[in-house]
Amino acid sequence: MPCEIERKFLVRKMPGDLTSYPSKEIAQGYLVSLDDGTQVRLRKADEQHTLTFKRGTGNVREEREVELTTAQFDALWPATDGKRLVKTRYEIPLGERVVEIDVYHDRHEGLIVAEVEFDEAAAAKNFQPPDWLGDDVTGDPRYSNQLLAS
Amino acid sequence: MPCEIERKFLVRKMPGDLTSYPSKEIAQGYLVSLDDGTQVRLRKADEQHTLTFKRGTGNVREEREVELTTAQFDALWPATDGKRLVKTRYEIPLGERVVEIDVYHDRHEGLIVAEVEFDEAAAAKNFQPPDWLGDDVTGDPRYSNQLLAS
Repeated sequence: MPCEIERKFLVRKMPGDLTSYPSKEIAQGYLVSLDDGTQVRLRKADEQHTLTFKRGTGNVREEREVELTTAQFDALWPATDGKRLVKTRYEIPLGERVVEIDVYHDRHEGLIVAEVEFDEAAAAKNFQPPDWLGDDVTGDPRYSNQLLAS
Repeated sequence: MPCEIERKFLVRKMPGDLTSYPSKEIAQGYLVSLDDGTQVRLRKADEQHTLTFKRGTGNVREEREVELTTAQFDALWPATDGKRLVKTRYEIPLGERVVEIDVYHDRHEGLIVAEVEFDEAAAAKNFQPPDWLGDDVTGDPRYSNQLLAS
C-alpha cells in the first residue's frame, strides 16, 4: 500500500533567510475531508496539479496521488469552495533529507509548520530534529491541513 | 453548479430483448461514500475511465466528472477495495430520452434498476414513465449505488 510517512514540527527559529531556499506557492482544497483522516485533496503547486487520496491518521497514512491536467483540475476545483488554504512551502536541505517549512497565508497568516517525510517508519521514529525545530506536533489536529482548510 | 438530475425506477417487465440494445460493462468503486450523499467514484465503462464527485441527495445532485487516463485510474483504483460493484448497462431509447437499465452482477446478481437523466428538474418531475417501468425508487437508499457497493 502506497503510504506517506511524515513528522510535523513547530519551528522554534528560522534556519536563516527563508527566501534563500527553493520555494513554491501551494493552493489546496478538499473535495472530502473526514475526522478519521480520509481526504480527497486537490493541490496546485506552481504549475503542477495533483489529486491525492489519503486515509488513516498518525505518522503513517495510506496515500495515493495522481497528477492532473489543468482541465481536470479546473473541473473539480470549484467543489472545494469553503475548504481551501494557501501556503508558501520552503525546502530546507538537512543532510540527506529535506525539511519543508509551510508558511500559511490568508486567515492563517502567521502560522508556520515544518514537515519531514521518510521512506520508513523506523527512520521517522529515529529522526533527531535540529535545534531550530520545536515541538513535535505530528497528528495534532490543530496543525492538520484538512482542519486548517475548513 | 454542474448537477445530475435523474429518476430511478424498478423494472416491471423488460422492454423486449435487452441484448438487442447498446450496452456496456461498468465497474465502479468508491474512494469515499458518505450517508449525506457525498461521494468520490471511480468508474470504468468499457475503455473509458472517469472520476466523479457527487454531493447531495434526491433527484438533483451536484456532480462534477472528469475523464481519467488508464494510468491515473490504476493508481487510485486499489483504494476502492471493498467498495465496488459491477453491472451491465443497457441503453433503451424512449422518445427523445434514454432509459438506462442496470443489471447488477456478483453479490447483487438479479437486481435490476432503471435510470432516466434530465436536463431540468421540471422535466424530471413531469416525466411519465412507460408501463414497463415500475415503482419510482429515486433516493431510496436500497437502490443507491454507493450503498450497493459497501
